[in-house]
Amino acid sequence: MALRSMRKTRGCWGFIRALHKAPEAAPAPQKDAMRRVFSGIQPTGTPHLGNYLGAIESWVSLQSEPGSVLYSIVDLHSITVPQDPAVLRQSILDMTAALLACGIDPERSILFRQSQVAEHTQLSWILTCMVRLPRLQHLHQWKAKSAQQKHDGTVGLLTYPVLQAADVLLYKSTHVPVGEDQVQHMELVQDLARGFNKKYGEFFPVPKSILTSMKKVKSLRDPSAKMSKSDPDRLATVRITDSPEEIVQKFRKAVTDFTSEVTYDPARREGVSNLVAIHSAVTGLPVEEVVRQSAGLDTARYKLLVADAVIEKLAPIKSEIEKLKMDKDHLEKVLEAGSARAKELAYPVCQEVNRLVGFL
Amino acid sequence: MALRSMRKTRGCWGFIRALHKAPEAAPAPQKDAMRRVFSGIQPTGTPHLGNYLGAIESWVSLQSEPGSVLYSIVDLHSITVPQDPAVLRQSILDMTAALLACGIDPERSILFRQSQVAEHTQLSWILTCMVRLPRLQHLHQWKAKSAQQKHDGTVGLLTYPVLQAADVLLYKSTHVPVGEDQVQHMELVQDLARGFNKKYGEFFPVPKSILTSMKKVKSLRDPSAKMSKSDPDRLATVRITDSPEEIVQKFRKAVTDFTSEVTYDPARREGVSNLVAIHSAVTGLPVEEVVRQSAGLDTARYKLLVADAVIEKLAPIKSEIEKLKMDKDHLEKVLEAGSARAKELAYPVCQEVNRLVGFL
Repeated sequence: MALRSMRKTRGCWGFIRALHKAPEAAPAPQKDAMRRVFSGIQPTGTPHLGNYLGAIESWVSLQSEPGSVLYSIVDLHSITVPQDPAVLRQSILDMTAALLACGIDPERSILFRQSQVAEHTQLSWILTCMVRLPRLQHLHQWKAKSAQQKHDGTVGLLTYPVLQAADVLLYKSTHVPVGEDQVQHMELVQDLARGFNKKYGEFFPVPKSILTSMKKVKSLRDPSAKMSKSDPDRLATVRITDSPEEIVQKFRKAVTDFTSEVTYDPARREGVSNLVAIHSAVTGLPVEEVVRQSAGLDTARYKLLVADAVIEKLAPIKSEIEKLKMDKDHLEKVLEAGSARAKELAYPVCQEVNRLVGFL
Repeated sequence: MALRSMRKTRGCWGFIRALHKAPEAAPAPQKDAMRRVFSGIQPTGTPHLGNYLGAIESWVSLQSEPGSVLYSIVDLHSITVPQDPAVLRQSILDMTAALLACGIDPERSILFRQSQVAEHTQLSWILTCMVRLPRLQHLHQWKAKSAQQKHDGTVGLLTYPVLQAADVLLYKSTHVPVGEDQVQHMELVQDLARGFNKKYGEFFPVPKSILTSMKKVKSLRDPSAKMSKSDPDRLATVRITDSPEEIVQKFRKAVTDFTSEVTYDPARREGVSNLVAIHSAVTGLPVEEVVRQSAGLDTARYKLLVADAVIEKLAPIKSEIEKLKMDKDHLEKVLEAGSARAKELAYPVCQEVNRLVGFL
């Protein structure tokens, strides 16, 4: 139960919760080809609709911007809470299949497994020797988590923001898409970059947050909460591999209110507004257009309309995931090739860091 | 000043403070060729007489026992307190020269630089996710250090005992020479080995301490304190590269008492007893014999006798260090070759750990 609630807090690696879709909040894409985007996702297995609409779609679109992008399946982060090895092993492959099926293209981005690039923990150790304990203890996430765990969380749970900093800096990343809950952690990344540069000379770019408006998909059963993989109510969460029948069932049971009209009013009508937001996201139509098109429908019929739109959006992804999962060797090879490319970038940076610190 | 006093507490890596010479405390050497000894030393540059007699001599003798021995220059540990990169770089080479000159033989032991074997930090991260924060906060050394630093020590200073555990376990070491001040840290190593084995199946040997009687060489200026590299009184500490003139000067100024006779009574006559202990250690004669031979000498003349014995003992080492320091390339090559051999041992262990944890 502690694990469940923690996962609720952490979800995936945090950075993935960002939405790159909101052009009003994001800076214009730089023309600079030196731009390098880094993001990580925890290997939680098959993503749900919230992961997909909230983050993975934006990862896909980031591939089209100038510069290079690295996406890491951050398995080292996943063990900060207990994991069953067999489940973790499978979840890494499932997440890989899902990312590929969603449109992460290993030709246009570097998709890799964090644990296969040893330089992450090497740089993390060096940064660990540059940060004071109170700085980590005062991070909101640690305070929340250690309170949940009655101050008995593992040391990994305390220090993982330093590993996150190493993840980003190891590739001299210039941009990191972040959600609101990661603002403090990005400040730590930036401070560590500045601190290193001050002590050893200009070396790391100070990475910029790609600040985006968060567009969280809500639970279908409790629209005041985020959609979450670990929701104990099976009907609350749509996985991107759910069958059409499951999707229809979940939307049919979605909690709305006693007004039958379809309107968008997140403050007062959380449930139906969540449906409208999902509808808008999967069709690519503006919220207003979706509401206009639904004039005259009651919420019961509207739920089926949204379910159909979701089924249509997810069908090719679901089918691609099923195909990819049949070929475990292919998934392993994609990760191996990606890890080799990541290592090619990480090794010289780590060697240079070793020289600057005095190890070489 | 904070750094100085911390170094006083830490000295070298701790494990090195053990003396393997006391046969009454050490278990009989095992016949088992699977025995593997691991120890680490911080790259503090040129060792002093206390390092040499208290630890390095025992490292040399451990090379003759069955099984294999690994000696690591633990540069990753050294950065838990601030370091100047140029000084650190030179200190690593100086320590290498000193160890070779003292008799560490790269043909009979694996002498390597910790930072060049990435698996140390990889395993350390995994172990970091298995230990609770209070366990580290309750370690005596952290409490002492964080009090000195007004609870403002780096996170590396808190977590380095976990890296120590990784250092030991990465080679499936069976034995670790430890001093009294490292007993708690060895318990952590053992608990982490047992914890890992319980969770993932028998994998790590639970390493045994080679418990030895501590024979600390005391400061020549304050025989109630240990001889320390960072002693502000230059005359307190004999470096193994000191000139004969310096050694004579330091012993001549050694603090004793107002009794001129030479006796061994550490409780009541700390100063002269320290001289007797040094005399015994450098000549290899029992304390009683040393005292018997000095009958009739006053302490002033005895100091010169001890200085001469120390000069005689250190002369070949000093000359060898000077020779070795001329050939930086050779020192680098020795470390590189050692690191390659260490990596050969570490890599398969780390891969197997990755498999067990579920990363592979």
